[in-house]
Amino acid sequence: MSISIQRESGEYLYHQVVSMVLEMQRSGSLRAGDKLPSLRGLSTKLDVSVPTVRQAYIELERQGVISARPKSGYFLKAKILEVAAPKKARPPCKPKLVERQSLIEDVFDAIHAPGFIPFGVANPSAAYSSDKALARAMRRVLSRAGAKAVECGPIDGFFPLKRQLALRYIDCGMQVDPEEVMITNGGQEAIAIALQCVAKAGDVIAVESPTYFGVLELIESLGMMALEIPLCSERGLSMKDLQSALDKHCVSACVFSSSISNPLGSSMSDQRREALVGLLEARNIPLIEDDVYGDLYFGKQRGRPAKAFSRKGLVLTCSSFSKTAAPGYRIGWLLPGKYQARANLMKRALSCSSPLLNQWALSEFMASGEYERNLRMLRSVLQKNKQKAIASISQWFPDGTRISDPKGGGVLWVELPRSNDGTELFHKALGHNISITPGALFSPSDKFKHCIRLSYGIDWSGKIEDGIKTLGSLVVP
Amino acid sequence: MSISIQRESGEYLYHQVVSMVLEMQRSGSLRAGDKLPSLRGLSTKLDVSVPTVRQAYIELERQGVISARPKSGYFLKAKILEVAAPKKARPPCKPKLVERQSLIEDVFDAIHAPGFIPFGVANPSAAYSSDKALARAMRRVLSRAGAKAVECGPIDGFFPLKRQLALRYIDCGMQVDPEEVMITNGGQEAIAIALQCVAKAGDVIAVESPTYFGVLELIESLGMMALEIPLCSERGLSMKDLQSALDKHCVSACVFSSSISNPLGSSMSDQRREALVGLLEARNIPLIEDDVYGDLYFGKQRGRPAKAFSRKGLVLTCSSFSKTAAPGYRIGWLLPGKYQARANLMKRALSCSSPLLNQWALSEFMASGEYERNLRMLRSVLQKNKQKAIASISQWFPDGTRISDPKGGGVLWVELPRSNDGTELFHKALGHNISITPGALFSPSDKFKHCIRLSYGIDWSGKIEDGIKTLGSLVVP
Repeated sequence: MSISIQRESGEYLYHQVVSMVLEMQRSGSLRAGDKLPSLRGLSTKLDVSVPTVRQAYIELERQGVISARPKSGYFLKAKILEVAAPKKARPPCKPKLVERQSLIEDVFDAIHAPGFIPFGVANPSAAYSSDKALARAMRRVLSRAGAKAVECGPIDGFFPLKRQLALRYIDCGMQVDPEEVMITNGGQEAIAIALQCVAKAGDVIAVESPTYFGVLELIESLGMMALEIPLCSERGLSMKDLQSALDKHCVSACVFSSSISNPLGSSMSDQRREALVGLLEARNIPLIEDDVYGDLYFGKQRGRPAKAFSRKGLVLTCSSFSKTAAPGYRIGWLLPGKYQARANLMKRALSCSSPLLNQWALSEFMASGEYERNLRMLRSVLQKNKQKAIASISQWFPDGTRISDPKGGGVLWVELPRSNDGTELFHKALGHNISITPGALFSPSDKFKHCIRLSYGIDWSGKIEDGIKTLGSLVVP
Repeated sequence: MSISIQRESGEYLYHQVVSMVLEMQRSGSLRAGDKLPSLRGLSTKLDVSVPTVRQAYIELERQGVISARPKSGYFLKAKILEVAAPKKARPPCKPKLVERQSLIEDVFDAIHAPGFIPFGVANPSAAYSSDKALARAMRRVLSRAGAKAVECGPIDGFFPLKRQLALRYIDCGMQVDPEEVMITNGGQEAIAIALQCVAKAGDVIAVESPTYFGVLELIESLGMMALEIPLCSERGLSMKDLQSALDKHCVSACVFSSSISNPLGSSMSDQRREALVGLLEARNIPLIEDDVYGDLYFGKQRGRPAKAFSRKGLVLTCSSFSKTAAPGYRIGWLLPGKYQARANLMKRALSCSSPLLNQWALSEFMASGEYERNLRMLRSVLQKNKQKAIASISQWFPDGTRISDPKGGGVLWVELPRSNDGTELFHKALGHNISITPGALFSPSDKFKHCIRLSYGIDWSGKIEDGIKTLGSLVVP
């Protein structure tokens, strides 16, 4: 800290300390996640009283610039993104749909291009890979399975895996019968089945805005319509907006990620989630809970799944191992609530059953305790990566850039200065062997065109930092 | 052969030889697949001329009782089933659907009940398991894959596997670009995607009658309607019936298994299949070709897939490894013809991608040549099992039972005397730890209630023979 206090300026001393910290944040010499000097340390250095520094820090905390961590001191926070409440919108007409489809295909192609910096891939488990532990589990299974290794498992899943999943839910304060769990081909199939349990072509489905494009594509491919409910990056879903949307429209079902959303990384409190379930069940509207990021929380403990608050069985919880351990195993699950019979029919009709060997290896992986250990490490690495990514973006992206402060998961939502187009940036970045996800994908309307989603679920390195610097240089100030 | 010729009876000598063979067939002393005595041998034994025996054999061949194999002699054929042309029918109303659903669930439960004789499971690869070779391939992949072992593959599949599949099609006289192949979660997902490429809720889909219940369930779960086209166990689809059905109804698509059908095991000649494709493409009606049994032919060579005759890209070919190698791997594929863009969208929306490790191991398995070797052995074992099963059923089931003579695959279609109900027999058999598949499942109407499907895709043993004997004792004469 090199700036000194101007005693003769007439400005309050604590105000000067505040301005000083803000200037250091702007210049990048203090970056998100950095620890601020202690009260005593700064008071000595600047030759001001400890109460003056404390008053400055309290003001900075009030402004949301820094935050206190018990017994650790004060830390610079990321610039919090407040997404302006977007307007509700109907899904795009046919030509628009096609346009976005080819963009989604471009994004997926870039994911698999070798040598690319994969900011466009939401595979957070890559930040702390389970590959070795899972390969060991798979080898153990192969050596025991014999002819069973190629046999077909039950439609609704391999029982030992269902049991392990039910056991884990106890820690979330939820009593789940293993027979209630249906194993699916990843979380995407879980949502596809859930949607087809509760809605049909032509129905209106409420979604978060912005929301994961896979959900939008599914809704459209089933001939349903998406109704966007604004999401706040800090508190999650706006209940007031939801209520008024439900009053105005005939909504057949909701698909929400109230634990950790994608792309915003917002999270509702348990209390608000309980109110959400109460509101929907009072109106007999099914809630499809996309909980794939639920276990990647950064807080002290996992939020309780929406299903824990369900009284009528109208909550269908979808999750998977794709974000926490093994995207390529394509194993997810669905707790279908009161729609179990229909879910069984849909699973049989759509894909018969899920790969047995993969389920078996994952159940071994869970039973051995390795899954839980890996998850703990993964959460810790992701949280560190998040800070690094935010710091790096703050440094290299132009002023006017706003970054979300995710409560979990592996992605950041970045609002670029309005003159930018996320899709153009996506194409420019490809030229530098960098993949990103354009904001246009996360809504059927055009309101997030100046946004991008960046993944920090990556094995972090200097190359990644360089990638952010390059990306920042492509953004128009 | 103990019966002698009655020279004084006045009946033609060759007629007497014919009656004798038929009586031996009835009593079970001659069983399906048994070789008949040579012309010279029988002529000596019965003291009649060689031309008399030859005339008798020609008459028996004309009646379809025996067949000549070049350079091998004459063999007793199975009693051929001619399924009476069933009426076209609309799908059942809701209550009927539910009834069949729970029956399908019972059938699947019985499949996984330990210790059961699995006549109800159509897993023909169990007759010659690939488990060891595939486990070796999987271990090789695990030792090389590293972090890639848990990563997500491309939406449309792992390229080396797509290339292997394209290579195999060359042997069927078909030029396929690897990029045309889409990998799916088993054949069922391939059909689910194909159907959603070409039809929507409310559309009419033509199916074979009888047909695989998984296709019927899929059609109904998507809100479509099934139109049954009669199938003949010898020649396959009745083209005349198909034509008149197309004249009467607005058919959006067809789902046919013209290579090897399930449950009949019928097969169309390449010539008739070409005519079928011509007929449908002339009317711009897409043909979904369910070819999962196509590689399990018993003839000299594989029939050419319908797709080989397509000129307009309206044929969507579905197949999988589930019948030939590894049902539990859940890997199938789709050649979507001109519907590739829509198929990609549906795959992404329904399940994102298929398990990478499983695709990788299968591509190794194919590249090493082991898949082809295993297939050759499997076909040979299945053909022997078929003869054993037919012989055993002929012996232990009451008169009036008719058995199909499958041209490939792993199942027999058995018409019981009319007083029997296949579903009742299914429940009775469960009490004896035997699973079968009731005929009622293979049609939305009630016309196959007195039929059952029995699998011979089993590791054959004395226990299996005993199972057929037990089953026969439960059938009402």
